[in-house]
Amino acid sequence: MINGFAGKILRVDLSTSSSTVEEPKEDFYRRYLGGTGFVSYFLLKELKAGIDPLGPENKLIFAGGPLTGVPVSGMGRNSIGAKSPLTGGQGNSEVGGFWGAELKFAGFDAIVVEGKAPVPVYIWIEDGKVEIKDAGHLWGKTTKDVQDWLKQQHGTGTRVCQIGPAGENQVRIACVVNDINHAAGRCGLGAVMGSKNLRAIAVRGHQKVPLANQAAATPLMRRLFNDIKNNRGAQGMHNMGTAGGIMGYQMTGSLPTRNYQFGQFEGAEKISGAAINQTILKGRGGCYACTIRCKPEVQVGEPYNVIPEYGGPEYETVGSLGSMCAVDNLPAIAKGNALCSAYGLDTISTGDSIAFAMECFEKGIITEADTGGIKLNFGNAEAMLQMIEMIAHRKGFGNVLADGVARASQKIGKGSEQFAMHVNGQEIPMHEPRLKMGQGVGYAVSHTGADHCHNIYDTAYSMRIGSGMKAMGVFDPVPANDLGPAKIRILVYGSLWQNVLDSLVFCNFVPLPSDDIVELMRVATGWNTNLFELMKDAERYVTMARLFNLREGKGKRYDVLPKRFFTPFTSGPLKGVAPTEAKVNEAVELYYGMLGWDKDGVPTAAKLGELGIQ
Amino acid sequence: MINGFAGKILRVDLSTSSSTVEEPKEDFYRRYLGGTGFVSYFLLKELKAGIDPLGPENKLIFAGGPLTGVPVSGMGRNSIGAKSPLTGGQGNSEVGGFWGAELKFAGFDAIVVEGKAPVPVYIWIEDGKVEIKDAGHLWGKTTKDVQDWLKQQHGTGTRVCQIGPAGENQVRIACVVNDINHAAGRCGLGAVMGSKNLRAIAVRGHQKVPLANQAAATPLMRRLFNDIKNNRGAQGMHNMGTAGGIMGYQMTGSLPTRNYQFGQFEGAEKISGAAINQTILKGRGGCYACTIRCKPEVQVGEPYNVIPEYGGPEYETVGSLGSMCAVDNLPAIAKGNALCSAYGLDTISTGDSIAFAMECFEKGIITEADTGGIKLNFGNAEAMLQMIEMIAHRKGFGNVLADGVARASQKIGKGSEQFAMHVNGQEIPMHEPRLKMGQGVGYAVSHTGADHCHNIYDTAYSMRIGSGMKAMGVFDPVPANDLGPAKIRILVYGSLWQNVLDSLVFCNFVPLPSDDIVELMRVATGWNTNLFELMKDAERYVTMARLFNLREGKGKRYDVLPKRFFTPFTSGPLKGVAPTEAKVNEAVELYYGMLGWDKDGVPTAAKLGELGIQ
Repeated sequence: MINGFAGKILRVDLSTSSSTVEEPKEDFYRRYLGGTGFVSYFLLKELKAGIDPLGPENKLIFAGGPLTGVPVSGMGRNSIGAKSPLTGGQGNSEVGGFWGAELKFAGFDAIVVEGKAPVPVYIWIEDGKVEIKDAGHLWGKTTKDVQDWLKQQHGTGTRVCQIGPAGENQVRIACVVNDINHAAGRCGLGAVMGSKNLRAIAVRGHQKVPLANQAAATPLMRRLFNDIKNNRGAQGMHNMGTAGGIMGYQMTGSLPTRNYQFGQFEGAEKISGAAINQTILKGRGGCYACTIRCKPEVQVGEPYNVIPEYGGPEYETVGSLGSMCAVDNLPAIAKGNALCSAYGLDTISTGDSIAFAMECFEKGIITEADTGGIKLNFGNAEAMLQMIEMIAHRKGFGNVLADGVARASQKIGKGSEQFAMHVNGQEIPMHEPRLKMGQGVGYAVSHTGADHCHNIYDTAYSMRIGSGMKAMGVFDPVPANDLGPAKIRILVYGSLWQNVLDSLVFCNFVPLPSDDIVELMRVATGWNTNLFELMKDAERYVTMARLFNLREGKGKRYDVLPKRFFTPFTSGPLKGVAPTEAKVNEAVELYYGMLGWDKDGVPTAAKLGELGIQ
Repeated sequence: MINGFAGKILRVDLSTSSSTVEEPKEDFYRRYLGGTGFVSYFLLKELKAGIDPLGPENKLIFAGGPLTGVPVSGMGRNSIGAKSPLTGGQGNSEVGGFWGAELKFAGFDAIVVEGKAPVPVYIWIEDGKVEIKDAGHLWGKTTKDVQDWLKQQHGTGTRVCQIGPAGENQVRIACVVNDINHAAGRCGLGAVMGSKNLRAIAVRGHQKVPLANQAAATPLMRRLFNDIKNNRGAQGMHNMGTAGGIMGYQMTGSLPTRNYQFGQFEGAEKISGAAINQTILKGRGGCYACTIRCKPEVQVGEPYNVIPEYGGPEYETVGSLGSMCAVDNLPAIAKGNALCSAYGLDTISTGDSIAFAMECFEKGIITEADTGGIKLNFGNAEAMLQMIEMIAHRKGFGNVLADGVARASQKIGKGSEQFAMHVNGQEIPMHEPRLKMGQGVGYAVSHTGADHCHNIYDTAYSMRIGSGMKAMGVFDPVPANDLGPAKIRILVYGSLWQNVLDSLVFCNFVPLPSDDIVELMRVATGWNTNLFELMKDAERYVTMARLFNLREGKGKRYDVLPKRFFTPFTSGPLKGVAPTEAKVNEAVELYYGMLGWDKDGVPTAAKLGELGIQ
């Protein structure tokens, strides 16, 4: 009996077109929480080693958490996970919007999708009823067309989680999209969904998420509402979105530019948050129950014709399609973003892959003969947009980039591996390890390859220690360029806490301290939980993700950064500054040690015993 | 600026008869809390390796915690620590009564006593003023005589922490006594105080412990008062005291008898809690602010003439002076207890040492020639009482036992080492590892040698998992005779939490869940603290205690149990049941591993880095 928790997990077998419902006990929920914790559990427990990520033996998990659907900002999200076709390890990605909450209202904490449908299908879930329906007529269509049809078919309140043509084509950098403008971008999970012939999961629910202690929940939620409303950071997020940070990155010399060759972009001001606000911004969208509403919605006329429904470019997208490709044309970046939403492509991996190809092109490693006549120079906005089309449809040279930077560089060869900017198979987000050295270590140790969301290290911690770190017993600031134990401790604690949030599944941008999250958990679930238990849960499923990767043969030798990050820039604020490879490797071992893993990154028997992992 | 915390540490140098006051910053308090945390900090940081525990270079720490003096049951305690003359490692012992709270009222969180007074002295502290005064006329007197004189001299409200003649004589099993009936029994700390010529610390204070959030504290403390009052376990403790458990131990065959040769004592009923209540009990005493009042006060007429002021025998004492020595004469046990209070002897180590000598005597290893004519047979109550006198005054054979079982067996030789029941130099409490196998591992790994207070494993955890363990994410009961990872995890978490309590310094017997302790900490200190931070603090100073012991050359080879515990009883409920030596050693390594120590029990560099230990 789970208080405040629907307590049902839906299992859908697409091969047999059947479904079952499981009701795990309370201790299962307390051990794994939900979201990414569930992903780690199901992948380690149920997948056989060595399976093809794009074969029917892979499983695709969609999971909310114990607070999903509770009417508090940040509580509309869900995790998606599977063995990643991009990295070959555990893949998980978290996504906002409304779909996660709607799944909860329909009675399910999570869905485990197994097998492969013989023909294209979608899943329709309404208040506990599950149907697997034909999607042949939806195949090849944009996400907007598909969502429009599903809402017409099942009612406007229907929430849709889907892939686009990129996922259908098993592009390894394809994403899964909620509400056509929120992406579970990383790890190529869209390709897994495509490989299962599953175009969409449409959901409608009318159940309320029960709260164990409603009397305490009401005033608490009211206070949190006001705290968030009055928070200046949250107000800043509403006013500028994540793109508000661009000029800060530019000023610190850490704006990823021209495939990480530079840390400053001459066109930065043209693509800044202020520029977005002044030129293309139409409004702000948000997620379920969220009062912050940080999502940009942009409108652009001829020749790009970008509609607000596809959202607008976030910081990561402005970086990857903008400065990384040296494109300073904001309407074109907005168009690229809309294409990625329409086709279901991860903007980070897509932009990085194109930037990689541009460097190849400028270095003469590939030519117009390879690109089908496209002049793939840095700064060529039209080429960038053409490449997005070609990647999504695996056309021409797009078919090379469709498998991501690591595989593309293997195909292209000729030394291009030297600047193939990925970690463990995943393209790198817009956070420069030559400034944020702790984040670099986070990239190296992340179980999904380069990621800025779960193995997180914020430079803010370098300059000041906030209440969140104090609550974990960390009181001393550590300089950004320090990779000693004090820094790695912050990385470890920060990453574990982020993994807690990814399992709840809670948003990074909602400024609630851990105290409030814990209190909300207690009120919602009735558990006597606390930061200790939640951090141990995170240790558990982070360690399980490690075990999954080790089982797939992905150990220490994959936990490395591209060598470019060890070469300092020759100008700008970061001139002469870079971590050494030895220091990063030493820091990686420290990270292992702090998690109770040995020097090779293998969890010790004692740690497995402590965490109750068999 | 420490909210709710006096924030002053008094340092007294007895060699120069001077004192200074230190005011550490908030982060120091958050890292080490107080009590035993302070002990670990000062010993590791300030003692040189290899010093004589009974020399002037040893330091003696008396420390309350952040909640000491707050008017809640259990908040009157303090820790005492020094390099132990019994074990040669870190010594610490916690004690109830009123003195700890009084020290806080006088303005100090802790006292660090250094050096050695040229002549016997006592320290007089009144509201921040400190005087070192002559105690020549108090030397050799009973604790009652000394306390009476000090109260006469400084007022009846004066609280006294002192040693007795045993401490003066540097008996290595001498204790420190608060209020003449609360003992910081373990580790021979009384001898350290004696070696410094310090007979007593008399304290009077009138300051109130400030609370950071008085508005929240008042209703919280009112609720805790009612929760404790209505708790059936607490009511049971009031009615029977710790001795209430004797018949339970007898029934499970785990009542330490005749130097751990047996698990049942034919005279058990005669020394049971019920027998105490029906025969010698005069009333119940308690500690500062405590509503439970579990301390027995007994009165016995001729020939023993026991007065209630010296308290009465607790479970440990009934075991050590009773069943361990096969003495079923309750008035004699009460007399033995009063003598230990009057002379300042640890009842556990004293009873164990006598029981060891009795086994030697019965085996013919020692004879009346050694004992000065005393027939030291099991069951001889008068011999037991005579030996207490002789130990306290280092007279005759008492001088052999005055240094504890380990040293006595070395002196006596002739195979007596085989049944010298100590772990790492400290005599063993009344908890039988052949039943409570987890507690056995706790004895082995304890930084103070055999201890049932900080490396704690309650058999209750075998049978049911309570809310305290659930709050730590432990949901599955583990059988008492299981030493696998699930058991050791409970031992690790339980021990860390106990170390939190020993630093606050809070009483084991007050039934407040960790939730309430954390809330009280938040309200009292104003810190955004939580179970995670507190458990990490405990990890920190438990690891520091380990480092201290390693520096003294006390590593893995000391973390072993006496072989007797690996031999099952041949009758009774535990017939045929015993842990194997291999299993215990394996469990010890698991314990190390879960704490981030290597196979040899040496903390890893990563763990030290995480905990911020240089």
